[in-house]
Amino acid sequence: MGKAKSDKVKRGEGRAPLLRDVLRVPEGERVDLSTYDAGATPGGPHDKAAGLAATALMGERLGDLQERLWASSTGGDRRRVLLVLQGMDTSGKGGTVKHVIGLFNPSGCRIRAFKAPTREELNHPFLWRIAKALPEPGEIGIFDRSHYEDVLIARVRELVPRSQLGRRYGQINRFEQSLTEDGTTVLKCFLHISYEQQRRRLLQRLANPDKHWKFNPGDITERSLWPAYQESYELALERCTTPHAPWHVIPSNRKWYRNWAISTLLLEHLTSLDPQYPKADFDVEESRHQLLTEG
Amino acid sequence: MGKAKSDKVKRGEGRAPLLRDVLRVPEGERVDLSTYDAGATPGGPHDKAAGLAATALMGERLGDLQERLWASSTGGDRRRVLLVLQGMDTSGKGGTVKHVIGLFNPSGCRIRAFKAPTREELNHPFLWRIAKALPEPGEIGIFDRSHYEDVLIARVRELVPRSQLGRRYGQINRFEQSLTEDGTTVLKCFLHISYEQQRRRLLQRLANPDKHWKFNPGDITERSLWPAYQESYELALERCTTPHAPWHVIPSNRKWYRNWAISTLLLEHLTSLDPQYPKADFDVEESRHQLLTEG
Repeated sequence: MGKAKSDKVKRGEGRAPLLRDVLRVPEGERVDLSTYDAGATPGGPHDKAAGLAATALMGERLGDLQERLWASSTGGDRRRVLLVLQGMDTSGKGGTVKHVIGLFNPSGCRIRAFKAPTREELNHPFLWRIAKALPEPGEIGIFDRSHYEDVLIARVRELVPRSQLGRRYGQINRFEQSLTEDGTTVLKCFLHISYEQQRRRLLQRLANPDKHWKFNPGDITERSLWPAYQESYELALERCTTPHAPWHVIPSNRKWYRNWAISTLLLEHLTSLDPQYPKADFDVEESRHQLLTEG
Repeated sequence: MGKAKSDKVKRGEGRAPLLRDVLRVPEGERVDLSTYDAGATPGGPHDKAAGLAATALMGERLGDLQERLWASSTGGDRRRVLLVLQGMDTSGKGGTVKHVIGLFNPSGCRIRAFKAPTREELNHPFLWRIAKALPEPGEIGIFDRSHYEDVLIARVRELVPRSQLGRRYGQINRFEQSLTEDGTTVLKCFLHISYEQQRRRLLQRLANPDKHWKFNPGDITERSLWPAYQESYELALERCTTPHAPWHVIPSNRKWYRNWAISTLLLEHLTSLDPQYPKADFDVEESRHQLLTEG
């Protein structure tokens, strides 16, 4: 980047970059999560108060855009949004779902939390249970964990042979491409927290008896596999960042930044979709007249 | 009621009656909806400002109770809540869902809006699709329309023979009894609006081009069937008010009262359930030590 252009960007002249371009994983490059600061606030407000205020300000526009998206689907528009959330334990997937739902009309949202597969689910290809939970036209789908578990925990815990695992990245990419071709905006977010931040959050749970039910001594064993998980995430982010469905790394040590960033990404995508209320396909005046003159 | 007791109640002495007893349909009596004032505010705050404030005040307790219910389920407690919402077009079922979700953590809620049955659903008994959408232990289920459509529109539109319709009330009662025996609190609310109020709300939709997509000229035809629908509701409320799963009539011309009343009913039921956080089944100190000393 030449000095002139660099100065221009620094002074905020020209067009501000979209957050989705700032947080997007670069295509075709190795991903090294240790170079991503989980406590950073890229492109965001500089402190918590400003972050909360900026997030609150987005609420009305997001609600309006969602209503338009839903309304538009009643006129035959097949477009929809699927937000995929992944991250280590305590990274805030549940908190993000709660935050996102608060922005929208929940009736137009389809939330699904994926746990360890049931026996029935295991008897099907791994994408079977995913396909059943997809949003319908006009909806905002939210996945708390997803098909990526099948290349994350499945890799770390060696739940399937390596050769089968290797094929899954391509299967996922083709699956997601078919979704986008059918009108789904696939927004994939990795909630990135540091090893130290997870320790703090686990200790907080232990300090509060009302939170003990959320704790499992197995969580500590799982921490010993942290490097293997990070490596699996790096591979998944790398192999499954495609032009149609890129991954975004959301620094998530700061909850206010995480919520601001996810809200902003949703706003950017919904704004691009620019859904419109369908025009009335009936005689408005006639209907009004009927209502005003009925017996 | 003797004069002394009556005065005492009026002065607010003694125990305030639970709202669920105030709004509950009396068992074994004929229901005449024309005697229920859709604009009334029984047991509630006397104006909108007070209603909104009282509802906001319940939020924290409701959120806490829901977390306890969910936490308790992780310890094996099978209890859950199912809120069933029925009402005429524009009665505010969707708005109520949005309001209720706002009180809780949406991850612990299971929302389902029932539309006209699909071909697959029609190929099964009418309770089939209902059974598939029920809340799991610890969850709050919310039905926007329900199995009652199968004795409401099905009766008005004569979608099934009368003999089959007649059997459905008993089938519903046995079904709901089995739910309560398995730990489900079934909370059924009829959102009662007046004919005139529906006219006002439909005219509001027509006045705003952004709301035209919500309007269907068929809505007016449907209004001509208002008396038949009211009669079907009366029958359903009468035959399906049982000790285990009574109906409640929620006057819903005023949205603030409707939201206050539903919140209060949920609060009363969750308070009765009194769910508890499960005790830690692991050595808290040992886990803390491990986290503090890990490499």
